[in-house]
Amino acid sequence: MSTDSLEQLRQRLAEFAAVRDWDQFHSPKNLAMALIAESAELIEHFQWLTEEQSRCLSPVKKQAVSYELADILIYLIRIADKLDIDLITAAQLKIQLNENRYPVERVKGDARRADEY
Amino acid sequence: MSTDSLEQLRQRLAEFAAVRDWDQFHSPKNLAMALIAESAELIEHFQWLTEEQSRCLSPVKKQAVSYELADILIYLIRIADKLDIDLITAAQLKIQLNENRYPVERVKGDARRADEY
Amino acid sequence: MSTDSLEQLRQRLAEFAAVRDWDQFHSPKNLAMALIAESAELIEHFQWLTEEQSRCLSPVKKQAVSYELADILIYLIRIADKLDIDLITAAQLKIQLNENRYPVERVKGDARRADEY
Amino acid sequence: MSTDSLEQLRQRLAEFAAVRDWDQFHSPKNLAMALIAESAELIEHFQWLTEEQSRCLSPVKKQAVSYELADILIYLIRIADKLDIDLITAAQLKIQLNENRYPVERVKGDARRADEY
Repeated sequence: MSTDSLEQLRQRLAEFAAVRDWDQFHSPKNLAMALIAESAELIEHFQWLTEEQSRCLSPVKKQAVSYELADILIYLIRIADKLDIDLITAAQLKIQLNENRYPVERVKGDARRADEY
Repeated sequence: MSTDSLEQLRQRLAEFAAVRDWDQFHSPKNLAMALIAESAELIEHFQWLTEEQSRCLSPVKKQAVSYELADILIYLIRIADKLDIDLITAAQLKIQLNENRYPVERVKGDARRADEY
Repeated sequence: MSTDSLEQLRQRLAEFAAVRDWDQFHSPKNLAMALIAESAELIEHFQWLTEEQSRCLSPVKKQAVSYELADILIYLIRIADKLDIDLITAAQLKIQLNENRYPVERVKGDARRADEY
Repeated sequence: MSTDSLEQLRQRLAEFAAVRDWDQFHSPKNLAMALIAESAELIEHFQWLTEEQSRCLSPVKKQAVSYELADILIYLIRIADKLDIDLITAAQLKIQLNENRYPVERVKGDARRADEY
C-alpha cells in the first residue's frame, strides 16, 4: 500500500485497536462478520427506496450513508491489514481481470450475472 | 478524495462502467446489493474456519480472499462516487467519532456491542 | 415447534448433520454466517433487476430462487434447533409486536424505517 | 404449503401488509434486501463472541436472537408468498439434493466449501 490516505487510515485503525486491546477480537473471521453487518446497515437505507430515490438522497440521509460507507471501509482496511493484503494492488488486479472477463463489445448495456454469460 | 491511489481507482471504475453503458444499472440501491453480495463471498471463506484458522490462510486461500476484498472496495468506491461522497474524509470523521465513543479507559479489552454500553 | 412440516424438516436436518459429523461446525456463530451467505445468493439474483422484473421471474430463475429460499430456511431451522428456539412461536410473538409498533392508521402506505417514526 | 403453522403465518403476514398498503413496497427485490438486513442483525449478536460463547447465550441474548430469527422467517415467508413458492417443498427438494451432493462416506467430519470438493 502506498504511503497515501489509505495507508494513513490503516495505521490509525491499527493504533485504535491496539490501545483498546481489541486485536484479540479482530480475527479475519470476526472482522468479516463486522464488515457484512455494516454492509447491511447500508442496505437498510435503501431497501424501501426506489432506485431513483436512492440516487437523490436528502442531506441528512446522505450524511448517514457516508458513515455507513466509512464503517465498511474501516473494516475492509482492518481485514486487509490483518491478512497482510494490499487493497489497492488487489483492486487493480481485479479490475484487470474484469476488463478481460467483460469485453465491451460483448456486455455493453447488459448486466446479467457473470455466470449467465 | 485526494489525487492518490483511491482516486485513481475511482476514475478507472467510472470509465469501466461508462464504456459498458452500465451506469444505468449502478443506482446506489443496486450497488449496495452488489456490495453486500461480495461481502458474503468473503464470509463464505471463513464460515467453517475457526478464528485461528482465519488468521493463517494458505497462499491459495489468501489470493482468493484478496479478490473478494478487491470486489468490496470496487463497489464501495462506486457507491461513494455515485453519491459524491469522499470515502477518506468520511472514514476520518467516523474514526474520530469512534475515538470519542469508545474511550480507552472504558472499553479496554471489552468488545461488547456499542448499544450494550 | 408443532409436529408439522417445519418440525419434520428440523428432524431431517439434525439427522443430516449428525451422520456427517458436522455438528462440530454448526455453532450458532458459524450457522449465522452460512445463513447470511445464502441470503446474499438471493440478493445476487435481484441486484441488477428492476423491482418490476423481480416480480416476474422466468421459470428457470424462479426455480433457482426457490433453492436459495430453501437454503435460508435450512440454516434458519438449524440455528433455531441449536439454540432451542421455537421459530413459529418467535414469529407469532414478533408479528404481535409489529402489529402494535405499526398501527394501521399511522403507517398506511408509508414504509419509512422504523427508527424514523 | 400445507395448512400448518407456516401457512398460518403466511396468511397473517399477507393481511398485515395488505391493511397497511405495504404490498407496493414488497417487491421480491426489496424483500430480499430486508431479509439480508435481518440476517445481519443476527450476525451482530455473534460477531465478537467465540463459537463456544455463541452456543451458550444468556436468557436475555437468547430472547433477542429469537426475534432476529423471527424477522428472517417473516421476510422469507413474504418473498416465497410473493413469488408463489412453497417453502417446505423447496426445502425438501434442496435437502434431497444435498444428500446426494454430500455422501456421508465422502464428507464425514469435513466441512470444506462445496466447490472445493
